[in-house]
Amino acid sequence: MKKITIAAVLGIAALSLASSASAQIKPEDQIKYRKAAYSFSSWNMNKIKANLDGTYDAAQVKAAANAIASVAGSGLGALFTPGTEKAIGDQKTTVKPELFQKGAEVGKLAGDFAAASAELVKAADSGDVAAVKAAHGKVGATCKACHDKFKI
Amino acid sequence: MKKITIAAVLGIAALSLASSASAQIKPEDQIKYRKAAYSFSSWNMNKIKANLDGTYDAAQVKAAANAIASVAGSGLGALFTPGTEKAIGDQKTTVKPELFQKGAEVGKLAGDFAAASAELVKAADSGDVAAVKAAHGKVGATCKACHDKFKI
Repeated sequence: MKKITIAAVLGIAALSLASSASAQIKPEDQIKYRKAAYSFSSWNMNKIKANLDGTYDAAQVKAAANAIASVAGSGLGALFTPGTEKAIGDQKTTVKPELFQKGAEVGKLAGDFAAASAELVKAADSGDVAAVKAAHGKVGATCKACHDKFKI
Repeated sequence: MKKITIAAVLGIAALSLASSASAQIKPEDQIKYRKAAYSFSSWNMNKIKANLDGTYDAAQVKAAANAIASVAGSGLGALFTPGTEKAIGDQKTTVKPELFQKGAEVGKLAGDFAAASAELVKAADSGDVAAVKAAHGKVGATCKACHDKFKI
């Protein structure tokens, strides 16, 4: 899990300070990319749920868990720089402006998402369906926790 | 790389046959999710390029490479089922209808993307910047190969 742990730390760090590389992203692209990242994560969360509810395809669940962890570890904070609180052109956003004033709280929520998705990867690799179900629920709870606070 | 190899195979398999789980995705959501997946991948490709052109952050490059590989291994074929050749509601698409008649060719291109991104992960893990630059170029070439044939 080392890679995901490093990535998680990176993700949190990025919330307070975008790297020189990330800082070059245009505001409208930040909105586009963060929506894409969460949408990609959402598809993979749904995929795991469908596997838990229907036929369980271990390889598909492993790949989906890895995809969700890769989103959590992608340094999403770099896509929330000041100036991206509101829609830019046709790039709409459902973020609450408060998010941009609460870096520490957002960092904690991002860390929870990263930690929970790392556990989901572990569970998927173990092939223990009950563990995957529990870990999937925990990841979903971290999504909801942030949406409840910072999503319109 | 075993996980990514399995995922890559899954991705190709999904091109010819969506799993029962994936088959339940609404056509408009397939378009939304596939655009999100490629956009997330694009952000991470750009991130690696920025690291190669500027200050190299090994942890960020590792996380970005893993993110790209997770897209390649996510079973994207399940997001290209018949009926998603054209825009649905406000979900526009730039896919060429030919893609839906050329499963084998698309599967080959998807396999190239998965294999190249697995190499990128390997290079990022090695910390060899020249290898990352070469592997990043190869992944970009697989993106372009598919865009040239199947993107409007």
